[in-house]
Amino acid sequence: MYELGVVYRNITRADRAAADGLGALGSATVHEAMGRVGLMKPYMRPIYPGAQVSGTAVTVLLHPGDNWMMHVVAEQIQPGDIVVAAITADCTDGYFGDLLATSFQARGARALIIDAGVRDVKELQKMNFPVWSKAISSKGCIKATIGSVNIPVVCAGMIVHPGDVIVADDDGVVCVPHALAAKTLAAALAREANEGEKRAKLASGVLGLDMYKMREPLAAAGLKYID
Amino acid sequence: MYELGVVYRNITRADRAAADGLGALGSATVHEAMGRVGLMKPYMRPIYPGAQVSGTAVTVLLHPGDNWMMHVVAEQIQPGDIVVAAITADCTDGYFGDLLATSFQARGARALIIDAGVRDVKELQKMNFPVWSKAISSKGCIKATIGSVNIPVVCAGMIVHPGDVIVADDDGVVCVPHALAAKTLAAALAREANEGEKRAKLASGVLGLDMYKMREPLAAAGLKYID
Amino acid sequence: MYELGVVYRNITRADRAAADGLGALGSATVHEAMGRVGLMKPYMRPIYPGAQVSGTAVTVLLHPGDNWMMHVVAEQIQPGDIVVAAITADCTDGYFGDLLATSFQARGARALIIDAGVRDVKELQKMNFPVWSKAISSKGCIKATIGSVNIPVVCAGMIVHPGDVIVADDDGVVCVPHALAAKTLAAALAREANEGEKRAKLASGVLGLDMYKMREPLAAAGLKYID
Amino acid sequence: MYELGVVYRNITRADRAAADGLGALGSATVHEAMGRVGLMKPYMRPIYPGAQVSGTAVTVLLHPGDNWMMHVVAEQIQPGDIVVAAITADCTDGYFGDLLATSFQARGARALIIDAGVRDVKELQKMNFPVWSKAISSKGCIKATIGSVNIPVVCAGMIVHPGDVIVADDDGVVCVPHALAAKTLAAALAREANEGEKRAKLASGVLGLDMYKMREPLAAAGLKYID
Amino acid sequence: MYELGVVYRNITRADRAAADGLGALGSATVHEAMGRVGLMKPYMRPIYPGAQVSGTAVTVLLHPGDNWMMHVVAEQIQPGDIVVAAITADCTDGYFGDLLATSFQARGARALIIDAGVRDVKELQKMNFPVWSKAISSKGCIKATIGSVNIPVVCAGMIVHPGDVIVADDDGVVCVPHALAAKTLAAALAREANEGEKRAKLASGVLGLDMYKMREPLAAAGLKYID
Amino acid sequence: MYELGVVYRNITRADRAAADGLGALGSATVHEAMGRVGLMKPYMRPIYPGAQVSGTAVTVLLHPGDNWMMHVVAEQIQPGDIVVAAITADCTDGYFGDLLATSFQARGARALIIDAGVRDVKELQKMNFPVWSKAISSKGCIKATIGSVNIPVVCAGMIVHPGDVIVADDDGVVCVPHALAAKTLAAALAREANEGEKRAKLASGVLGLDMYKMREPLAAAGLKYID
Repeated sequence: MYELGVVYRNITRADRAAADGLGALGSATVHEAMGRVGLMKPYMRPIYPGAQVSGTAVTVLLHPGDNWMMHVVAEQIQPGDIVVAAITADCTDGYFGDLLATSFQARGARALIIDAGVRDVKELQKMNFPVWSKAISSKGCIKATIGSVNIPVVCAGMIVHPGDVIVADDDGVVCVPHALAAKTLAAALAREANEGEKRAKLASGVLGLDMYKMREPLAAAGLKYID
Repeated sequence: MYELGVVYRNITRADRAAADGLGALGSATVHEAMGRVGLMKPYMRPIYPGAQVSGTAVTVLLHPGDNWMMHVVAEQIQPGDIVVAAITADCTDGYFGDLLATSFQARGARALIIDAGVRDVKELQKMNFPVWSKAISSKGCIKATIGSVNIPVVCAGMIVHPGDVIVADDDGVVCVPHALAAKTLAAALAREANEGEKRAKLASGVLGLDMYKMREPLAAAGLKYID
Repeated sequence: MYELGVVYRNITRADRAAADGLGALGSATVHEAMGRVGLMKPYMRPIYPGAQVSGTAVTVLLHPGDNWMMHVVAEQIQPGDIVVAAITADCTDGYFGDLLATSFQARGARALIIDAGVRDVKELQKMNFPVWSKAISSKGCIKATIGSVNIPVVCAGMIVHPGDVIVADDDGVVCVPHALAAKTLAAALAREANEGEKRAKLASGVLGLDMYKMREPLAAAGLKYID
Repeated sequence: MYELGVVYRNITRADRAAADGLGALGSATVHEAMGRVGLMKPYMRPIYPGAQVSGTAVTVLLHPGDNWMMHVVAEQIQPGDIVVAAITADCTDGYFGDLLATSFQARGARALIIDAGVRDVKELQKMNFPVWSKAISSKGCIKATIGSVNIPVVCAGMIVHPGDVIVADDDGVVCVPHALAAKTLAAALAREANEGEKRAKLASGVLGLDMYKMREPLAAAGLKYID
Repeated sequence: MYELGVVYRNITRADRAAADGLGALGSATVHEAMGRVGLMKPYMRPIYPGAQVSGTAVTVLLHPGDNWMMHVVAEQIQPGDIVVAAITADCTDGYFGDLLATSFQARGARALIIDAGVRDVKELQKMNFPVWSKAISSKGCIKATIGSVNIPVVCAGMIVHPGDVIVADDDGVVCVPHALAAKTLAAALAREANEGEKRAKLASGVLGLDMYKMREPLAAAGLKYID
Repeated sequence: MYELGVVYRNITRADRAAADGLGALGSATVHEAMGRVGLMKPYMRPIYPGAQVSGTAVTVLLHPGDNWMMHVVAEQIQPGDIVVAAITADCTDGYFGDLLATSFQARGARALIIDAGVRDVKELQKMNFPVWSKAISSKGCIKATIGSVNIPVVCAGMIVHPGDVIVADDDGVVCVPHALAAKTLAAALAREANEGEKRAKLASGVLGLDMYKMREPLAAAGLKYID
C-alpha cells in the first residue's frame, strides 16, 4: 500500500561511484550479478535507441491521468538522480514532455523511468534526455490530485526505494538496492572480467558445450543424439 | 529487489479481529477506506464466483515454471493466513492444484492469491478453497530453483509484506498494511454506516446530483444543459 | 472528437416496440440482420451469465478514473433506457457499483454498457441489474472533471448515438441506429423465421454442404478430396 | 506451412478405448503424464464451466472471418470425434453457433476446440455441446475462401494431427499424439494411482516437505531459515 | 453502425491553411488545444520515426483481411489528403504496401492512418510515405467484400469524419473536426506562443512549482513535506 | 506434442540456391507466392531495422527461463542456417546475448528467430547478427532442463520443420517448407516480374481500379457512388 500526500526530502542515496560504475556495465550484466532479480518488466522500452545510463532513484507516485506530482518531484532532484514514476493504476497517458524534461535536466536528472506514457519524444531525443516508458502518447494530464515523493513504489513490477541505483539501456531497466550497490558492482565487474576470453574462444569456433563442460550433465539429464 | 533463498519464520501478523472484520466489508469498501490505494491489478480474478475472504498474508516468491517453494511456504501457514505468491517474471503456468490445496487447507490457510496460474479448479471449488489468479492452466511446474518465504513481494502490481491483511472477493484483491488494519477497519465501518440510508434515498428516486449537492460544483466546472 | 461539458436533454429515442422486439432476438441475429456491422469489440463481457436485454441508449462520456458524470447521466434516464458509457482514454477503474445501480434502476434503466470497469458485481447480480464491461475492479473514482451526456460516443470501438437501440446478451453487445430499428427488426425476424426448419434438418443428419448447396461452389473454388 | 484446399477423408484415429480413458483423467494429469508438453495456450477457455471431454481430433483450417470450411469438416466427423479449428491469422469472430452445433452433434462430435470466437453460447450450453475457444463474439463470418480439413494444424500454439486425442476440461486443452495414446493412458493411470494416499497424508497435516523428502535438497540448494 | 457499400464523392474538407498550420504544431499541442480530446489510442505508431504531417481525412471502411476498398478510396484522394482506414473487426493483416503507396502518392496523399497492419515498410520509408498503424505484417489481403468510402469511421477509438484534419507525428495521431480547424489552430498557436519563455525559465532552474504557483494549492490539497 | 530430449543430427536442408534466392524477394512476396500462408505472427519483430535474410532452419525447443539447449543447437549449425527457437510456454526472458551470438556466427548462422526475448541488442547490431523476437529483456536464463534440437516446432504460431527455408525482414518472418522452396521461388519471381510495370503505371496516376479492372466486379458486389 502507498502512503499518500507526503514528500520525503531526505533520502539515503547509494554511493555515487558505485552507481556510476554500474551504468557502464549495462542492465543484463548487473541483473545477473544480483542473482537474476531486480529487473522491471520488459514492456519498459527506451523512447530512442542507444542510451545507457545509471543514477540514484528519486521516486514519485502519481494518479492515472494526473501529472501534478511531476512538478513536486522536480524540486527533490539532485545531480545524478533518475526519476522513477509509478502510477496507482494502469495508464498510458503522456505525463512528461519537453518542458518538464527541461526542468528535470536543469536540476541534474539523468533520465526518467515511468510506468505510463510520455510525449514530445522527438524533442527529448534532441535534448539527449532518455526515457524508458510503457507507452508514447500525446495525451496530456490534469493537475488535480496529490500522490507522494520518495516513498517506495512499484514500477513495472519492481519495488524501487528512493536512493536505489537504476541502470537502464536498450535491454531494459534494473534496480539495485542502495545497500547492495558496491557489492553488486564488484560481482558485476568480476563477471565482466573473463567475458573477453570467452568471446575469443567462441569466435574461434570452440563450442559452449565444451567450454562450459556441458556434455556430461546433458547426457546425465537424458539428452540423446540421433543420426 | 528480492532477497533469495531465505525463509522468515517469525512475522508480525495483523490483529486477527481487524483482519476478520475487514473481510466482511469487501474489497471495494476497504480500498476506499484506505484512500483508493492498495488494490492489485484487475487481471486477478477468482477461479469461481462468490467467495469473499480475508486473512493475514504469508508471502512466497517463486521462479517461472517452478513451484518448489510452494511446499516450503506450506509449513509457515498458520490458521487464518492467506498465501500470497509472486513470480520473478511473467508466467501463467499452473503452480497449484488439489494436492497442495489439501495441504494448505490442513494448515489453516483460507485462500491463495497468485500472480500466475492454477489448475484442478473444479476440485478446488468442491473443496471450497478459493484462489485469485492471473490464469488457469494445466501446465505443471518443476522443482529446481529456490525463492523465498515471508519477504516483501510485488503481487499483481501491489507490494505485500508478510502479515498484511488481504481482502478478496468478486471485485478484486486489496492489501491492507498490518499497521493500518485497525484504523482501516474503523474507516471502512464508518463508510459502510450510512450506505443504507443513501441506498434508500436513491431507490426512492432521489438523484445523486441532489443527495450529494453536485449541481453547483458541476455548473462551476462549466457543465451546460441544452434542450 | 468529443464535445465536452454539455448535457443534451432532448434526444430522439428509437421506436419502443422495435427496441423491445430486437432484444428477444439476441445480439448475433441482430448483428447479421444489419449486414454484420454494429458490434462492440468482444472484450465487452457480461458481469454475470444469462442476461439478455435491449433498450434505448443514453450516452455518457467520462474521463479516466473520474465518474462524476455518472450522476449527471442518471437524471437523463427514462424507463427502457440503457446507459452507454465511454471513457476518453483506456481505463479499467470501477466506475459503477450498487449505489449508482440503485439510482439507475429507480430511474428505469435496464442495463449499463461501459468501456471500463465496475464493482459490487455480487450485489448487481442480486439486484438483477446487468452490466457489460471491459473489466471488474474495486478501484474507485474521483469526481473532478466534466464530460458530456447524450453526445455520440465510441464505446468498445463502436459509434453509439443517443437514442440508438442496444441489444446485449452472453454473445456480446450490438448497436442499432435508431432510424434503422424497425427495418432491422423486420430483417432479423425474417432471418429467425426459417431457423427452426434448418435446425430440424441438421439435427436429422442432413449436412450444411447439401442444405446450402455448397458442394459445387467449393469445387469451383478448388477444394479437393483425397482418400 | 499449410496445404490449402484439401480434405483428407481417411485418417488414423487413436485407439478409442485409450481416447476415452484419457478423458476421465483430465488435462492436468494427462499433460504431466506426457512429460509436461502437449498443452494449448491457457487463453483457451470453456464457454461454460464443468465440461470434461476427450475424443479424436478432426482438424480444420479456416481463414480470418470465413467459416465456409466448418460445413466441409462436418461431413468428416465420426462419432467420438472432437473438431479442432485453426485460423491462418489471429481472429476473434464467431465462427460457430447453435445451427452448426446441431449438425456437429448429429454427426457424433463431442466438442469443438477453436482458436477464435463462437456465439450462441447460451444455446450451446443448453444443448450440452462444449466449446473451448479464445473468444465469444456475435460477429458472423462470410463463406468465400477455402482452407483444408484433416491436415496438421497449429491451434493455440500446439500442433494437432488428425486422429490425435484431445482432452479438455476446466483447466485447459491437451493434445496426445495418436501413437502415444495407450502409453500416455498407462502413465497417467499410474500417476493417478497413488494420489489418494498422498491426499490423505496431506489432509492429516503431513507436509509435502517431508512426504517428498525435500528438506535436504532444499538445504543443498542453499535455502536458509531465519527466526 | 456503418453504412456499407457506399462511396461519397463530395465531402467538405477543412480549410487547407488551417489543416497545414496544425501540422507544424504537432499532435500533443493540438490535442491540448482541443481540451485534451481527439486522440487515437496510443497503439497507433509510425512505421519509421521522424515524420510529422497533417492533412484532410478521406476515410475508408474495410473488412478483416480484405483490402479491396483501398483501390476504391485511391480515386477519392485529392492533394493534401490523408487516408484514414478503419476495419470492421480487429485485424493485423498487411493491407497496404509499396504499390498502393505509389498510387496514393501519385494522387497527392500525404500519409495513411490505418487501424491494422501494413507491409513493405522499408520501401515506404524510401518513398517518404509515412504510415501510422497498429501492426506491421507481411500478410496479404483478399479482394472479396465491399465496405465504404467517406463515411464517418472509428479508427483506433476515435470518430473521424471525412474532411476532418489529421495531425500525426512520433507522439501519436489526433483528429480535429473540420468545423473546428481554424479555432483549434488559433488556440494551439496561443498555447505555443509562451512556451519559449517557460522553457527558458525552467532551463535556468526555476521550478514549475513556482512558475505555475502550485505550492499553495498543493498544501491546500494536503501535501506534506517530511525532513 | 513435442518429443523431448533428442537431437537430430541429420536433417534435409532445402536447396541452398532456392533458400538464398527467396531471401532477396522478402517476406511479403514469398508469403503471397505460397498462397498467403506460412507467416509467423506479427508480434515477431527485428531487434534493429533494415536486416533482410534467408537461410535453412535448425530448430530448438526450450523451456521457459532455461536456455541450456542453445548451446546444444550451436553444434548443429551449418553455414547458411538460421536458428528457430520455440519455447514450451509463453516467456519473454532473454535467452540469447552477444556471447551466444559470437558462437552462432562462428558456426555460420545467419540469424536467430526466437519466440521469446533476447538481450545485448546494441552489441548484436554491432556484430551485424540479426534477431527476430517477441521481446527484448535483460532477464537471464538457467540451464537445468533439456528440450530438443531439430524436431518440428511451433514458433510464433507457425510450424517449422528442420531444413525449411526462413525468410525474414522488416515486414516479418515466413517459413517455406523445404520441399516447396524451388517452386515457391519460381512463383515469387514470376510475381515480382511485372511489379515494375505496375508501379510505373500507378506512379503515373493510373488507378488500380482500372489497371486491375475492378469497376465491374465492385458494381456487381453492390458498391454505389453518391455525389
